[in-house]
Amino acid sequence: MENSDDFMAKIVALCKRRGFIFQSSEMYGGINGFWDYGPIGVALKRAVEQTWWKYMVEDRDNVEGLDSTIICHPMVWQASGHLANFADEMTDCTVCKKRFRVDQMDDPTTCPACGAKAMTPPRNFNLMMKTFVGPVFDEEHAAYLRAETCQPIFVDFNTIRIASRQKLPFGIAQTGKSFRNEINPRNFTFRSREFTQMEMEFFCHEDESMKWFDYWHEQRWNFYTKILGIAEDKLRIHWHDKLAHYAKKALDIEFLYPFGWNEVEGVHHRGTWDMSQHAAYSKQEQDCRYFDQERNATYYPTVVESSCGLDRICLLLICNAYDEDTAATQKEGMDEDARVVLHFAPRIAPVQVAVLPLSKKLEEPATDLFRKIRGSFRAQYDVTGSIGKRYRRQDEIGTPFCVTFDFDSLNDNAVTVRDRDAMTQERVTVAELAQWLRNKIDK
Amino acid sequence: MENSDDFMAKIVALCKRRGFIFQSSEMYGGINGFWDYGPIGVALKRAVEQTWWKYMVEDRDNVEGLDSTIICHPMVWQASGHLANFADEMTDCTVCKKRFRVDQMDDPTTCPACGAKAMTPPRNFNLMMKTFVGPVFDEEHAAYLRAETCQPIFVDFNTIRIASRQKLPFGIAQTGKSFRNEINPRNFTFRSREFTQMEMEFFCHEDESMKWFDYWHEQRWNFYTKILGIAEDKLRIHWHDKLAHYAKKALDIEFLYPFGWNEVEGVHHRGTWDMSQHAAYSKQEQDCRYFDQERNATYYPTVVESSCGLDRICLLLICNAYDEDTAATQKEGMDEDARVVLHFAPRIAPVQVAVLPLSKKLEEPATDLFRKIRGSFRAQYDVTGSIGKRYRRQDEIGTPFCVTFDFDSLNDNAVTVRDRDAMTQERVTVAELAQWLRNKIDK
Repeated sequence: MENSDDFMAKIVALCKRRGFIFQSSEMYGGINGFWDYGPIGVALKRAVEQTWWKYMVEDRDNVEGLDSTIICHPMVWQASGHLANFADEMTDCTVCKKRFRVDQMDDPTTCPACGAKAMTPPRNFNLMMKTFVGPVFDEEHAAYLRAETCQPIFVDFNTIRIASRQKLPFGIAQTGKSFRNEINPRNFTFRSREFTQMEMEFFCHEDESMKWFDYWHEQRWNFYTKILGIAEDKLRIHWHDKLAHYAKKALDIEFLYPFGWNEVEGVHHRGTWDMSQHAAYSKQEQDCRYFDQERNATYYPTVVESSCGLDRICLLLICNAYDEDTAATQKEGMDEDARVVLHFAPRIAPVQVAVLPLSKKLEEPATDLFRKIRGSFRAQYDVTGSIGKRYRRQDEIGTPFCVTFDFDSLNDNAVTVRDRDAMTQERVTVAELAQWLRNKIDK
Repeated sequence: MENSDDFMAKIVALCKRRGFIFQSSEMYGGINGFWDYGPIGVALKRAVEQTWWKYMVEDRDNVEGLDSTIICHPMVWQASGHLANFADEMTDCTVCKKRFRVDQMDDPTTCPACGAKAMTPPRNFNLMMKTFVGPVFDEEHAAYLRAETCQPIFVDFNTIRIASRQKLPFGIAQTGKSFRNEINPRNFTFRSREFTQMEMEFFCHEDESMKWFDYWHEQRWNFYTKILGIAEDKLRIHWHDKLAHYAKKALDIEFLYPFGWNEVEGVHHRGTWDMSQHAAYSKQEQDCRYFDQERNATYYPTVVESSCGLDRICLLLICNAYDEDTAATQKEGMDEDARVVLHFAPRIAPVQVAVLPLSKKLEEPATDLFRKIRGSFRAQYDVTGSIGKRYRRQDEIGTPFCVTFDFDSLNDNAVTVRDRDAMTQERVTVAELAQWLRNKIDK
């Protein structure tokens, strides 16, 4: 079996070569823990984000959207406990001056770099990134880049509830950037310092909270298996055995990344902790409590959270989709090595349809067809190289359907659609093509 | 004519009440220059962003997408000149201790707050927000939140060019957050400290750059007038008469906001400045120059930029759409005051279709219809209050079409569609409804 480092090296190389993901500021030697998404990567990222937004917000009556600022009032992070507790224990080697996270060392008294037994006592290092707002740079004007997208949801709960005329139970969702000053960013985009979260906080009465926990557990599992098309044996539920004092239940959905089972999503019962903390720190009780007409009672909503990382999902999708397929190359009369192919679900494939004229003489009608297709699907046009080479190019970025426009097309008004996975070819009329593709992509 | 402050006060109040936009961290007293988008606002913002992305990236063969990090290598901002020059001149009052931007004072020797003639000499205040990356907080580990989204485009130019197999001329576009530590944020979301930009940098040979400047000038004007539906007399071109030494031409597209004509977009000829600066600072000439096979020459690409602010466009759209309409209320048999209505183009309306059952007894079939509609359009369902009240509610958030399901609908399988602007009503069969709406919304 292939070494997981070798496998990840292939993924990283493919991602740069084909414009999925590469290091930020590479021209300046890069910046550790920051990654940029190129043309194909941004198409994937947007498709996943929009799929999540539709599934979590647009298709539901009881979830509202939000887009809050990254920089919030610093009291938000006092109330959430991040300023006091969002820290890693660190130790320094007094010989080679390197710094390490204590929880990642086998032996916290020995330097993993130089081997010296000269480590400082562990001390806390806060992971929030600090900046200053306004013209004076002192502690009074310090502010922090949000470490999670959920806190502004709690802070805006009441404004959104009133504006949207929602009653409990209902949820608020947002996607956006978060920042954590990780000591040791690693595993490509899995643990980075700037990343995009997708979170939904569901507000309900405590009596119904376990029912809603089970509901969101199921909904989120379905998102990965049914919407994104991940095989069930590549996913598992990890139940937390240590719970925060306020929590009743917590689970992670883990994926089998090349570097092991790791969290991609958390579904957490957060009790009334968040809303009562913000009430205590803001003194705005009325914005944190809810008057329930049916129960004739006022209470802090109990929160059930779904939280996932968009970058982790993109990495999951790329690792899950990656395949090298030797037999296949012969099928299409190619003499080459194994083809590299990404088996993305058509719904989220960065390019859904490629239009390939068989000859440069067919560019005009093929371009016409491409322009039409592009109105409804993420499409690419390629006229360079043999058809076999162009298939390989599309396989590598996971394009599910290649549409070849040939000389017969001029007479029969039909094209050949080649299936990425089965490598079968089917003749489809130009008139029926859009609907044919729609049926395959939406299923 | 109405005072512009009064008009803006109405806009701000409507934006909070209906969940468009409100102050970030309001529960903690707010944070100056930071704004959150609520459920209706985020729908508008996403619709505009996606419309821009489709128009600028997906519908074009010669523009590629990017999604870069907000925090880049600090040398990026050395090369761009931001660390040295991106500053405002400030002066302090030595009596009341308030700080002011010199270029906003009528008389820089007199305090606008307390009137004292006791101002300090002007000094520069850099607008970039600073943070620290990694475990040590010293100058060596300082980093900055990007002040514009275009610099990472220049830095990633060559990686994207190779991955996408593009030849000059072609463009790279991205949308995302930028940060500026404005001394005096003002005019609602117009000048804020955290905002979303949408930028496209077009790389070409110098000989063709003026042709491309004219092309993008026209394309961007069309975006506002044809795609977003803004009347031409609310927009104007402001030609820069002072040009940077490297620039050949520069214009702003301005909109008549309630607080005056102000920039919403810039189309700028940037010469070879950006690419030659990054070559000088990175010493990576090969990543900044382009080998042109046809010309058999290597050169720095000339850049033509289109740059706009998503928040400014959303504010423009709300201000432009806002209307109070007295006559209308009588038409629909309402005895109330003038209706408030937002005349958004259907394409970008936060809610495109509202489904309204005439009676609670019709909830089941009306909900069925709503669920179908929601698959293809941004839709809302409302069963509370009289039909007239519900129309007003939808008018206020700019919903172009209200679909009323009445008792006849059970027999004739048709619904009444009410037009927001004309306030006319049309009977449409349920079978034809989606196509009827599609025709109105896509036009």
